Amino acid sequence: MIGAVFSSWNGKRAVEYREIEKIPHEWGTAVTVQAMVFGNMGTDSCTGVAFTRNPGNGENRFYGEYLVNAQGEDVVAGIRTPAPVNEYSKNSQSKQFKTLEKLMPSLYGELFEYQKRLEGHYKDMQDIEFTIEKGKLYMLQCRIGKRNGVAAVRMAAEMHAEKLIDTKTAIMRVGPNQLVELLLPMLDPKVELVTKPIAKGLPAGPGGARGRVVFSSHEAVSWAKRGEQVILVREETSPEDVDGMHKSQAILTSKGGMTSHAALVARGWGKCCIVGCSDIEINHDARTFKAKDGVVVREGDWLSLNGTKGLVYEGSMALVDIDLDKNQSYKVLMKLVDKVKTMGVRANAETPEDAKQALKFGAEGIGLFRTEHMFYGEGGEEPLFLLRKMIVSKSEEERRKALGELFKYVKKDVKDTLKVMNGRPVTIRLLDPPLHEFVPHDKEKLQELSRELGISMSVLKRRVIALAENNPMLGHRGVRLGISYPEITEMQVRAILEATAELIKAGKRALPEIMVPVTCTFNELTHQRKIVDLVYKEVCEKQKLKKIPYLYGTMIETPRAAIRAGLMALEADFFSYGTNDLTQMSFGFSRDDIGGFLPKYLDLKILPYDPFQTIDTDGIGELIRMGIERGREIKPKLKVGICGEHGGDPESVVFCHKLGMDYVSCSAFRVPIARLAAAQAAIGS
Amino acid sequence: MIGAVFSSWNGKRAVEYREIEKIPHEWGTAVTVQAMVFGNMGTDSCTGVAFTRNPGNGENRFYGEYLVNAQGEDVVAGIRTPAPVNEYSKNSQSKQFKTLEKLMPSLYGELFEYQKRLEGHYKDMQDIEFTIEKGKLYMLQCRIGKRNGVAAVRMAAEMHAEKLIDTKTAIMRVGPNQLVELLLPMLDPKVELVTKPIAKGLPAGPGGARGRVVFSSHEAVSWAKRGEQVILVREETSPEDVDGMHKSQAILTSKGGMTSHAALVARGWGKCCIVGCSDIEINHDARTFKAKDGVVVREGDWLSLNGTKGLVYEGSMALVDIDLDKNQSYKVLMKLVDKVKTMGVRANAETPEDAKQALKFGAEGIGLFRTEHMFYGEGGEEPLFLLRKMIVSKSEEERRKALGELFKYVKKDVKDTLKVMNGRPVTIRLLDPPLHEFVPHDKEKLQELSRELGISMSVLKRRVIALAENNPMLGHRGVRLGISYPEITEMQVRAILEATAELIKAGKRALPEIMVPVTCTFNELTHQRKIVDLVYKEVCEKQKLKKIPYLYGTMIETPRAAIRAGLMALEADFFSYGTNDLTQMSFGFSRDDIGGFLPKYLDLKILPYDPFQTIDTDGIGELIRMGIERGREIKPKLKVGICGEHGGDPESVVFCHKLGMDYVSCSAFRVPIARLAAAQAAIGS
Repeated sequence: MIGAVFSSWNGKRAVEYREIEKIPHEWGTAVTVQAMVFGNMGTDSCTGVAFTRNPGNGENRFYGEYLVNAQGEDVVAGIRTPAPVNEYSKNSQSKQFKTLEKLMPSLYGELFEYQKRLEGHYKDMQDIEFTIEKGKLYMLQCRIGKRNGVAAVRMAAEMHAEKLIDTKTAIMRVGPNQLVELLLPMLDPKVELVTKPIAKGLPAGPGGARGRVVFSSHEAVSWAKRGEQVILVREETSPEDVDGMHKSQAILTSKGGMTSHAALVARGWGKCCIVGCSDIEINHDARTFKAKDGVVVREGDWLSLNGTKGLVYEGSMALVDIDLDKNQSYKVLMKLVDKVKTMGVRANAETPEDAKQALKFGAEGIGLFRTEHMFYGEGGEEPLFLLRKMIVSKSEEERRKALGELFKYVKKDVKDTLKVMNGRPVTIRLLDPPLHEFVPHDKEKLQELSRELGISMSVLKRRVIALAENNPMLGHRGVRLGISYPEITEMQVRAILEATAELIKAGKRALPEIMVPVTCTFNELTHQRKIVDLVYKEVCEKQKLKKIPYLYGTMIETPRAAIRAGLMALEADFFSYGTNDLTQMSFGFSRDDIGGFLPKYLDLKILPYDPFQTIDTDGIGELIRMGIERGREIKPKLKVGICGEHGGDPESVVFCHKLGMDYVSCSAFRVPIARLAAAQAAIGS
Repeated sequence: MIGAVFSSWNGKRAVEYREIEKIPHEWGTAVTVQAMVFGNMGTDSCTGVAFTRNPGNGENRFYGEYLVNAQGEDVVAGIRTPAPVNEYSKNSQSKQFKTLEKLMPSLYGELFEYQKRLEGHYKDMQDIEFTIEKGKLYMLQCRIGKRNGVAAVRMAAEMHAEKLIDTKTAIMRVGPNQLVELLLPMLDPKVELVTKPIAKGLPAGPGGARGRVVFSSHEAVSWAKRGEQVILVREETSPEDVDGMHKSQAILTSKGGMTSHAALVARGWGKCCIVGCSDIEINHDARTFKAKDGVVVREGDWLSLNGTKGLVYEGSMALVDIDLDKNQSYKVLMKLVDKVKTMGVRANAETPEDAKQALKFGAEGIGLFRTEHMFYGEGGEEPLFLLRKMIVSKSEEERRKALGELFKYVKKDVKDTLKVMNGRPVTIRLLDPPLHEFVPHDKEKLQELSRELGISMSVLKRRVIALAENNPMLGHRGVRLGISYPEITEMQVRAILEATAELIKAGKRALPEIMVPVTCTFNELTHQRKIVDLVYKEVCEKQKLKKIPYLYGTMIETPRAAIRAGLMALEADFFSYGTNDLTQMSFGFSRDDIGGFLPKYLDLKILPYDPFQTIDTDGIGELIRMGIERGREIKPKLKVGICGEHGGDPESVVFCHKLGMDYVSCSAFRVPIARLAAAQAAIGS
């Protein structure tokens, strides 16, 4: 028997649990041997489990269940429906049972006092096991109770208000990822409990959603326009689908992994998303998909998704929406968080709407404004067309003309966001993707371009082919574009500085940070800085301003840039670590292609976790550390941050804090998570 | 006048010269002011330039030219044809002139003594300027004379034999790249001098060549089969052209840069090659190309190429071939080199022929045997077909069957080379390229595969598409293949160990080094080592051997592997730096795609040189240094080498020596160059 307890440490569920909770397998377990009491000695005996506060919503009410004439195992096994300990603990299934309070009022009173005392002693919500043997109450065990995110926040805030715990403890009580539950709507758990999913995929974007099935981005847009809620179902998504993805309630793909295009975009928006759902087979011609069990879902049919668990349900399921503004506990907790944390938290955002959302979530600035964003999605058609014109231009003259037309769009785009951010820093990344990414691939769009540009299809095609690359990730992109075509940098810098100047003259505040991407050597920064200096002088003169506020800095995203950070710092006011690319290049992993081997790597534990989700501290972390050290050796006050997916990952945020970064930046919806993680890091250090 | 001398430092040619010779621009120049003598005071006056030995071939004979009644400028300007100072100095243009020796015998005698004394004093060949003013000899200047490669080697060897210089000095006298002239045939310089080139491209592969023009690899092979010498002219080349490239005397491409496929392959073979020759326009339909000046060259026409300078000539020009075995000076010098150098030099080779060539050039082992080589070129069809079968296999069972058939080819391939190397180490890299690279792209070959495999074209196509990657360089390749499909590693290791065992049982010597490519973490090495251990045991038993000699090691080619080298060393007997990939990943430069921006980078001096030609010591060098330090901290005797293009670059070889590497490995033909550089590094350190 004692041996069985010891060996339970290696039970399948125990091992799995430790893996989820990251508890080392080598710790082992202990066994306490003690006298036994019996809850199954008759009707004056019972056994039960209770919580000092409601673990489902955090309310400060005693909550529990019990079974008369039973042992603890009977309660846990769930063979008999347990009864509520008090009125408050009643639910739809147990409401007809007699409460312990009514059945044994004095023993209940005793129990109530104990639980109060235990919580007071341990200063946290307790999960209590008790047994009544022939009218005598025995407390079997108490331990800190598990709770969901909503409850965790409420308990932390209320216990702090009750002065049961101090500020630091309150902050440490909530797991940063638990906040996800507060930030996203969820499928009604009660309904979900009694419904069978038709398919299961990877939980790429948490939260719940429901909508009518469409099979193309185009349909998603047009259905949404007429007020329909839709779920976009695709094999995979690409940048061309972004508009339709944005308009959908959720995205479901049959292929791709946790770092596929769909997963990344959805996580960025905090949108519900399930990817790699191989249980479904899409038939594009018939506009249907077939689920594993043969269920056929047609275009227009309702579907409900649990993105937190990766479950797909037929039909329209009720959603439980949570309004953050009404969640007082959340507000209280986050105020404490902001008092404690020392590292800034910014958001990645590219539109005034995103910026407003970011502010709502507590962002202190924008850490990544991708200029190329304006070419995708709503309103992007005209600028995209101009960009394409610029791309296929053959001469600097042609290119300058197209850039000239593009200028006003870029300026407006930048200005609108700077305005919303009202003086908070906005880091604007100069054009980054390889140009081929913007080129149209369908004949129709190519023909339109050829007509508009007045060049033949064959010439156009030749120019497009010339832009194609074998490894675009390592190709003609980032600052390399700005060096090959300085006029692109010039136009963007002019747009940024003029937008800033106009806002300042209108009495507003604005602080752009011009960021050069994909650098690998100091000389690139010098080259681009000369352009910035020149344009700055011109804009100052034109706008009759003595100075326009801005910073000039670089992404550190190639391994070489991290190694050469000392020199890079000479020309940069700030570094922003692009840990996505740094991870890609240092591991030699193309994020688009890791589907072929990463699952096996994780499965065989060759890698402990996906390095695109959590920073690989041993390898990438060392490059980051080296870069910061070397940069600050030259420029002690160098501002250092991180932008990209890792900025919203709690473990990575803690790591960034330890390295002495000034801020992390992540997708707006993950800002509260990052803030909490930053506060916990400040407490932990 | 003095000002003019000072400002000559900034003359266009001076600047260019400094750039070629890598002399810092900030050094500046000095001016010496002295009394003048005149060689233009009548027929008893003259002026001349002479060398203490022949700078053209190194012969130890006084060699020079002079002009009666002239100043130094007249000699240099070349307006009048100068006369020879002695019989030995006569050439076809000057043979009718009277020698100085005949004209002024006593002054010539005086000059002869001076030059002898000067060489004895400076212990090197002197370039002397003299003037005779009215019968009196003045020595104006002497300096170390420039010489070509052939002369440099001869002078070094002979001066050493004369005991004029010691061993170290002799070795330092020859620029490693000067050896190229001794190793490759050249166009006859006399003919070239009077012929106008029809086009100019980038000098990707030095040496001279002539042959008849063909426009496809297929034609190259079939023409070569019937004994024709051909030059392959293409826009670009790809791995599928390798056979035709190999069969050609030289390769000429209209596109691509110094690191294009054609350039790399040709340099590897030491084959004459000109790339990026935009002066020519290929018309595939007409089987012609048109040069800049309108010259049209047809298939079958003769062409001559100077790969050292990138010049293309019409017609068949004579070649000057040099037989190394007959070059006593070379042999003497290289013996000195091998005495002095401390670092090993190996060759990259994959066939018994390559291995023999490597040994001839003095290689001490093979540093890179690419297993995938066997699938290209002659005799590769059957193994390639089996490989393709393996690649499109759907199950492990299918894959194992195809691998089983492939086994004998791999074993033979490895065995033949191990045999030639006779106990010298042969580093065999496990399969490296992403599988998609091997898949046929033309319909015919796909159909053949579909017939043979008994699967439909649509299924086959789907499997092929599934293998395609966005960034294959960072994709499913190297050890990732060995982890996804351990049976591939298993088959290769079995082939290597069985080949070794068979040789040993036959009384031969063999030392394979099994090398795992593209690793980024220790766990990958552990995973693959388990396979090696298992197979080792099986082969020992099967072959009834107690032990089979082999080493197990890894390439260090991802930045992360260099950073984590400490742990990697735990599982590796050796490290081999793959500086090509390390450069690609650390800079974020795809070698296939740098054509779009690298020329501009070099032009603007954003990079001082092409990091794929010479190791970037500041960035990549630091990663290498870090990797060696960390690796040897764990395993002090860890064997460390470098394979890939940099191993044959003299500056990089010196750097590798400084870092304490055990060996460099480069293409066979560059082995003497690397040996010389290694000796110079040993002297310099």
